Amino acid sequence: MNIHDEMIAMGDRAVVAARELLLLSARKKNAILQAMADEIDARKAILKEANRKDVEEAKSAGLSSALVDRLLLTDSRIESMVHGIRAIVGLKDPIGARISRWIRPNGLEIVKRRVPIGVIAIIFESRPNVTADTAVLCIKTSNAVILRGGKEAINSNVAIADALIEGGKKHGLPKDAIQLIRTTDRDAVRELVQMEGRVDLVIPRGGEALIRAVTEQARVPVIKHYKGVCHLYVDESANQEMAMNIAVNAKCQRPGVCNAIEKIIVHEKIAAEFLPKMANRFRQLKVELRGDEASRQLVSWIKPAKEEDWYAEYLDLILTVKIAGSAREAVDHINRYGSKHSDAIIAENEEVQKLFLTEVDSAAVYVNASTRFTDGGEFGMGAEIGISTDKIHARGPMGLEELTTYKYEVQGRGQIRE
Amino acid sequence: MNIHDEMIAMGDRAVVAARELLLLSARKKNAILQAMADEIDARKAILKEANRKDVEEAKSAGLSSALVDRLLLTDSRIESMVHGIRAIVGLKDPIGARISRWIRPNGLEIVKRRVPIGVIAIIFESRPNVTADTAVLCIKTSNAVILRGGKEAINSNVAIADALIEGGKKHGLPKDAIQLIRTTDRDAVRELVQMEGRVDLVIPRGGEALIRAVTEQARVPVIKHYKGVCHLYVDESANQEMAMNIAVNAKCQRPGVCNAIEKIIVHEKIAAEFLPKMANRFRQLKVELRGDEASRQLVSWIKPAKEEDWYAEYLDLILTVKIAGSAREAVDHINRYGSKHSDAIIAENEEVQKLFLTEVDSAAVYVNASTRFTDGGEFGMGAEIGISTDKIHARGPMGLEELTTYKYEVQGRGQIRE
Repeated sequence: MNIHDEMIAMGDRAVVAARELLLLSARKKNAILQAMADEIDARKAILKEANRKDVEEAKSAGLSSALVDRLLLTDSRIESMVHGIRAIVGLKDPIGARISRWIRPNGLEIVKRRVPIGVIAIIFESRPNVTADTAVLCIKTSNAVILRGGKEAINSNVAIADALIEGGKKHGLPKDAIQLIRTTDRDAVRELVQMEGRVDLVIPRGGEALIRAVTEQARVPVIKHYKGVCHLYVDESANQEMAMNIAVNAKCQRPGVCNAIEKIIVHEKIAAEFLPKMANRFRQLKVELRGDEASRQLVSWIKPAKEEDWYAEYLDLILTVKIAGSAREAVDHINRYGSKHSDAIIAENEEVQKLFLTEVDSAAVYVNASTRFTDGGEFGMGAEIGISTDKIHARGPMGLEELTTYKYEVQGRGQIRE
Repeated sequence: MNIHDEMIAMGDRAVVAARELLLLSARKKNAILQAMADEIDARKAILKEANRKDVEEAKSAGLSSALVDRLLLTDSRIESMVHGIRAIVGLKDPIGARISRWIRPNGLEIVKRRVPIGVIAIIFESRPNVTADTAVLCIKTSNAVILRGGKEAINSNVAIADALIEGGKKHGLPKDAIQLIRTTDRDAVRELVQMEGRVDLVIPRGGEALIRAVTEQARVPVIKHYKGVCHLYVDESANQEMAMNIAVNAKCQRPGVCNAIEKIIVHEKIAAEFLPKMANRFRQLKVELRGDEASRQLVSWIKPAKEEDWYAEYLDLILTVKIAGSAREAVDHINRYGSKHSDAIIAENEEVQKLFLTEVDSAAVYVNASTRFTDGGEFGMGAEIGISTDKIHARGPMGLEELTTYKYEVQGRGQIRE
């Protein structure tokens, strides 16, 4: 079979599985998820052995040590995978819930009910634990899932998917509810994202190049997260000590993640007082500062920022500084250069807070708090399949509800349209 | 300027307008909409004159009389456009509503708030009233809109858009909140649907060819409605008189619309009794019947159905008949050949009703009622920008809420992530 026919057949199997998943109760699905967790736990040695091949190949292919580390499965990483699955068992099942119900003047009863999306395709890169995380969230919400992981993690992904599938089957997981694309053929992705009628949603997870490639090829809906170019704006009305704490936390607590800040904007009226203190603090923390002309006049060792710096997601100890004449200027800058992810204002002035909340066009907007809280767990969703910087269907952290849709169930007693 | 640069500039202007729309109150927006309605009303003669050019060109180009009729603007059609705008003024504004609010253990207050999507592009075919309908729904929900109508209606669309824009401006409609693509260059559509970062959502409205072209080219999210291949399943437990009434209503009351039925499935246990009666009734109503082998054995004059008949949206007095051995077979058939739009069961057996409601994967599923009710007005939404057969973001009739998204507003007092 060629890759086109193979993928179509895989899609057809997923559609059948999606129908079967509709019939499983919340209790039944939880038993399946527990069995998956047990199986992963029982197969630690098999998983590590499969992973060893990937790691060796990655090393001999000269991958960076950071990438090799992302690939690596250790006992504790496998345990946290198991723990993650068990945590999802404990979450409330959103499927079947009545979102709303009303009765029309003609007596028709309309129920808007939460249902699974159907078949979800997840395309991801190196970290093999994504295989387990995403498959489990899809099954919890009664969606069939087609997984496509990175080439460099193929042995690990196969071992994890096999554990989930075989563990799940012991408690009635429908055949083909979880399918992993086992070829590393690049054409498989193109076929996958063009299977209208077989795939209802594609969620790409990875670097910008992956996301762009998927978006350009896709004919089925895509929910995506390009990047996190998060800003902190320190208003003239800010509590400066709070601003300093939050700036350091949002930049340094974990610089390699999407909700860390990449830019800081300081109101010109406090810049002469605040910026030198802040710059010294960041120098101690080994954060490289780049900045506009105005910031460099206040702190001479700030490096000049280029135009591309304003768009950049460094994921590293680099921070770009801008001085703004007003909150409005800061908001305009954020809307122009940001990525619609997470942006924060530090201000005591409530009018300025409101302007920022209303006009910054991002998934999460913060007043007097660190952007690092944009996260399914921190928001209290219990789980997260990703963070959307789109505005359609899901925005910000995507938990269980974001993996559902609805249908209208209309109950009549013979009504016809006049 | 070439078409690429022109469209980018148009997108940039729309983004600016979208920010300005954020600042308008519900009251202000309603004043703008009233002014638009007044202006359309005042310009009846201008609109009809512009429309006359389109109609003449359409006739001399040899368009069918049905298409020419769709183009035509009469006094009463213009009045109903005006009436439609005034009806939308009376609807509740969904923007700014708090969808939910919770407080995290660390004291962060999270508000999930309903906000506009931003910039919406609407691509549509011949009926010029779509210009007014869709622009008004977008402004009501504080979205900037870029309209692209059919070439054959260009003069009418320009006249309508001008009336809306100039009427709206008198009461503070932001410049460029409504923009019409005034060139009929086909490349404009491709550019439009690839403007990531400038266009947040594309809604194509028209025939299947238009929708497919948009979907293939798009890089921004699309919500669409391919076609309405709606089914009526008459179960063995059906009240047959009710089944007959609903079948006739759903097929004949207005055959040219997407929520009319195209297929009927009859349980084999009642087929010998029900089908001949139904066939006679449809013969009186001049409905052509096509059917499978089993149906033709019961009613010899039913024409044989080809495979493509099961997928077909006739929008005409044609109905395809199938005999099924069980409700399950009917459901499987619907899921395989249907378009996920609207499907109905006539049954007294509650278990079979439940099976149908749960397993038919369509936007609207009906028990003992006509599929013709799938409509924003009939559902009580007050307005409709279209019907989605997608499952992402919006499913079924799309009213005002479906033209919104949400953002998370997080209020802290210095919280940082540990």
